[in-house]
Amino acid sequence: MHAAAIPREVIARFEAIVGARHCISDPEQLRTYECDGLTSFRVRPALVVLPGSTAEVVAIVQLARAEGLPIVPRGSGTGLSGGALPVPNGILLGLSRMKRILEIDFDNQWMRVEPGVINLDISKRLAPQGYYYAPDPSSQQVCTIGGNVAENSGGAHCLKYGFTTNHVLGAKVVLSDGSIAELGGPVLDAPGYDLRGALVGSEGTLCVVVEVVLRILRKPEATRTFFATFPSTEEAGNAVSLIIAAGIVPAAIEMMDRLAIVAIKAATGVDWPDVGAALLMDVDGPVAEVEHTAAEATRLTRQAGALEIRVPRDAAERDVMWRGRKSAFAAMGRISPNYVVQDGVIPRSEIAPVLREIERLSASSGLRIANVFHAGDGNLHPLVLYDAAVPGQEKLAEETAGEILKICVRTGGSITGEHGVGADKAPYMTEMFSEDDLATMNMVRCAFDPEVRMNPGKVFPTPRLCGDKPGKYVPHETETAGLAGRG
Amino acid sequence: MHAAAIPREVIARFEAIVGARHCISDPEQLRTYECDGLTSFRVRPALVVLPGSTAEVVAIVQLARAEGLPIVPRGSGTGLSGGALPVPNGILLGLSRMKRILEIDFDNQWMRVEPGVINLDISKRLAPQGYYYAPDPSSQQVCTIGGNVAENSGGAHCLKYGFTTNHVLGAKVVLSDGSIAELGGPVLDAPGYDLRGALVGSEGTLCVVVEVVLRILRKPEATRTFFATFPSTEEAGNAVSLIIAAGIVPAAIEMMDRLAIVAIKAATGVDWPDVGAALLMDVDGPVAEVEHTAAEATRLTRQAGALEIRVPRDAAERDVMWRGRKSAFAAMGRISPNYVVQDGVIPRSEIAPVLREIERLSASSGLRIANVFHAGDGNLHPLVLYDAAVPGQEKLAEETAGEILKICVRTGGSITGEHGVGADKAPYMTEMFSEDDLATMNMVRCAFDPEVRMNPGKVFPTPRLCGDKPGKYVPHETETAGLAGRG
Repeated sequence: MHAAAIPREVIARFEAIVGARHCISDPEQLRTYECDGLTSFRVRPALVVLPGSTAEVVAIVQLARAEGLPIVPRGSGTGLSGGALPVPNGILLGLSRMKRILEIDFDNQWMRVEPGVINLDISKRLAPQGYYYAPDPSSQQVCTIGGNVAENSGGAHCLKYGFTTNHVLGAKVVLSDGSIAELGGPVLDAPGYDLRGALVGSEGTLCVVVEVVLRILRKPEATRTFFATFPSTEEAGNAVSLIIAAGIVPAAIEMMDRLAIVAIKAATGVDWPDVGAALLMDVDGPVAEVEHTAAEATRLTRQAGALEIRVPRDAAERDVMWRGRKSAFAAMGRISPNYVVQDGVIPRSEIAPVLREIERLSASSGLRIANVFHAGDGNLHPLVLYDAAVPGQEKLAEETAGEILKICVRTGGSITGEHGVGADKAPYMTEMFSEDDLATMNMVRCAFDPEVRMNPGKVFPTPRLCGDKPGKYVPHETETAGLAGRG
Repeated sequence: MHAAAIPREVIARFEAIVGARHCISDPEQLRTYECDGLTSFRVRPALVVLPGSTAEVVAIVQLARAEGLPIVPRGSGTGLSGGALPVPNGILLGLSRMKRILEIDFDNQWMRVEPGVINLDISKRLAPQGYYYAPDPSSQQVCTIGGNVAENSGGAHCLKYGFTTNHVLGAKVVLSDGSIAELGGPVLDAPGYDLRGALVGSEGTLCVVVEVVLRILRKPEATRTFFATFPSTEEAGNAVSLIIAAGIVPAAIEMMDRLAIVAIKAATGVDWPDVGAALLMDVDGPVAEVEHTAAEATRLTRQAGALEIRVPRDAAERDVMWRGRKSAFAAMGRISPNYVVQDGVIPRSEIAPVLREIERLSASSGLRIANVFHAGDGNLHPLVLYDAAVPGQEKLAEETAGEILKICVRTGGSITGEHGVGADKAPYMTEMFSEDDLATMNMVRCAFDPEVRMNPGKVFPTPRLCGDKPGKYVPHETETAGLAGRG
C-alpha cells in the first residue's frame, strides 16, 4: 500500500522541528519503515520523524494534531504483532534517537531512561554495581524499552520476575493534545489512578512515552541452570506441573519440542540429543536457596520421566544453552523457508492436552508445527512452518495459527502472552472480550485520544472512533485505510 | 451534616430491588454509616442499600442513574482515609452481603470471590491446601477484599509480596451506566488495556466491583521471625539499609520507636524492653534459604548496632510478637486520649533523616509523635498524639500530620502508602501532581463516570465535573456539598 502524500510545506515544518536529516520522506528510504518484526503486514508511512528530545516530541504531536495526521510510535521495530505498522496517511514517530539514561538511584532501586534505550544496554550499564533490569525478551539485544512498554514485553525470566508492567514504576508521556503528564513515578504505590498500568501494553494507542522509570534489581547471588531431555512433551509438561505444584518458582522454565530442538541444533551447533522434548531451567537466588531448590527441581524432573539432565560446567556452557533457546525463532529458517510465530497463553495445567491438539492440527493441515515456549507461564509460541512458494500454504499456515489461538481462548487462556495485539491479533479480540469489555477499553482510549490519531487500527478488532457518548463509538471509513492486507 | 431526603417513592423502588430489610433510611440507623475508620469526617447518607447479587447492583446503579443520585461504595468501613465517607444526597452501597467464594483453581493459582469477602477468611479457606492470599493489612480480620481493591491496601508483608494490585488479576465491574465489564482475568497478562490496574486504588470513583479474581500463593515452607532492639531509630534505620543493600528481601521489616513500644507494651503485655527502637522481621521461603538469609540478616542487624536479638521459641511466641505490632494503632489509646494516624512514603534511604525531622516537629508542636511503620517499603505511619479536650490541640495535630506529608513529598515520597487518598488526603494531591497529571486522571474518571456520581469528592483535590473537552473539567458548586467539614 502506498503512502498518501503530506504536502511539502507541512513536511518542511516537521523538518524545522527535528532537522531535515531526521525527517524521512523519500519513498525508497521509507521502505525501511514499512513493517516491524511482523513482515507479512506492510504499509508505507507518509513521513518518518525522528525526534531527539521531549520538546521535539511535543512539537511534533502538536503539529500532527493541527494537520490531523495520525501518529504511529516506533522503537527498534522488532515487535511481532504489527504494533508499529505505519498508517498510509500518517507519520511514523521513531524514538530510537532518545536513548539517554537520565538518572540511576541504586539506594532506592530505580532508574529513569528515555524510550530509545536498548533493553540489554540497561543491564550492561547496571552490571558493575551488581544490579540488572529483569524483563528479557529474546530480542533484548536490539529492542527498546519504549517498545517493551508499548507491548508489555515478557521473556524467559518473567515466570519469577513478572512482565514489563511489574518493572515500570512510572512514565512521562506526551498526550495527543501535546500536554505532558507523569503517570506513576519512583515512589511506591503512587496515589490516584494507576494509569502507569493502563499505559504499559497500550501499544502506542494512548500517548507517546518520553521517559520511563524502571525498577532495578540486585543480581541474584547465584544461578543454577539445567537442561533436561524427555521422550515427549507429555513428560516434560508433567515435570513443569510437579515443580510448580511443589511451590518452587524457577527463574525460567523453557520447553522445546522435537522439531524446535532439530532447528536449534541446525542453527547453533549445540550438542543436544534428538529427543521428544527438552526443558531449559534457571533457578536463582541466594546460594543456599539455589542449591536446595535446584536439587529438588532435579529430583522432580527425574520423577516425571527425564531421560537425561545436563548441568553446564561453567558460564560459557550456560550461555551456549541459553543462546540455543533464544535463537529458536530464527533457527526455523534452517528447516523451513517460512514460518508464522504464534503467541498465546493457556492455563499451565492445560499444557499437555493443548500440545496434543496442536499436534492434531499439524496432522490435519499437513504443516509442521514446532513448539518452543515459556512453559512455567503457559505462554506458548507455536511456530507454523510453511513454504510461501507453494500456493495456498501461507494462508493455510495463518489459518492454522489462528486455530491455535482459538484453542488457547477455549481453555481459559489468551490470544497473546507477550507479543501484543497490534494489527495481527486485533481481529481475535472478540474471542476474549465482550462488546461491553471492548467499549470500556475504548472509552479510556477516547479519553486519551478523542480524535483516534494515536496508532489507529491497532488493538481494537474493528475500526472505531469516539462518539458523542462515552464508551460508544462509530466505525469510520477512512480509518480502515490504516490497515493493509497481508503480503 | 444531615442527609438530603430521597423521596419515599424512590426509596420504595430501592426496597423493591434488595428487599426492605436491606434498605436503611431510618435516621438513627443511618448514623452507623456516617464514617469509615477516619472518624473525624462524618456525613449521614440519604440511604444505605445492601445488595446481595450482581443483578441487584446493576438494578441499583441504573435506578441511581435515573434519579441522578451519587453512589458511594463501602465494604466493612475500616478504611483510614475517608474513602467510604457518604455524600449527603447520595446512596451508600454496602457490599458486605456479597461474600461468596465463587471458584478456586489451585492448579493455576487463582480464585474468584465477591467483594464482601473478609481478607483473612480467604487465607483461612485456602490453608488446608497449603495456599494463602498475601496482602495483609492490619485490619485483615475485618476488612473486605472490595475495600482492599478500592484502596490498593498494603500490609506488613508487602515488602516482599507487593500490594493488592500485585494480587488482583481481574475484576467484574458494574459501570455507572449499569453495564457490566470484565477487567483483566485469571489469564496471565490479558491483552488490551490493563484497566485492572487503573481500577485497583481508584477508591470507588470508577465503577462498582462485583467479583474479584485473586492470585493465590503457596504458603512458604518456613518463616523465621526475629525481634531486634536498638538504642535509637538511627541504628534501626541503618540495619534496614544494610539488609536491603545486601540484596536480602525479607517478607517484612517493621520498625517501632520508643513511644510505640511503650504503647504496645501497655496494651498487649508483651515483654519488650524499654529501648529507643525495635525491628520486627520475617524472612520466609524454602528452609535452606530461610536459614541462610535469617543468619545473614541477623549478622547485619548486629553490625548496625542492635542491643539484643530475640527469636521466638515457637509459633505462639511469634504470634504474640506480631499481635503486638498489629495492635499498635489501637494501643495508642493507652497513652493518649486521641491520635491522628498518618500514612506517607519516603525513599527507603531517607528513613533516618526524616525521622529526625519528625522529632523536630514533635518538639516544636509540643505533641508526642509515635512511629510504627513498614520500614522496608519506607512507608511511614506517624501517630500524632493529642487531647481533643484541650482547645486547639486537634487542629494542631492535624496540621502537624499535614507537615509530615509535605516532608514525605519533599524527599521524593508520597502522600499515602496504603491507606488511600479518600476525602482526607485529597487536598494534598496537588503536592504530588501537576494540574496536567490530575487532568489526565480526571479524563479517565470522566470516561468511566461522565456524571461524576461514583464516590464524588474523593481523590481529586478540588470538586470537578466532566466538561465538554476531554481532560478538562469545571468546578461544580453542588458537588462540594459532598464534603463535610471535620469533627
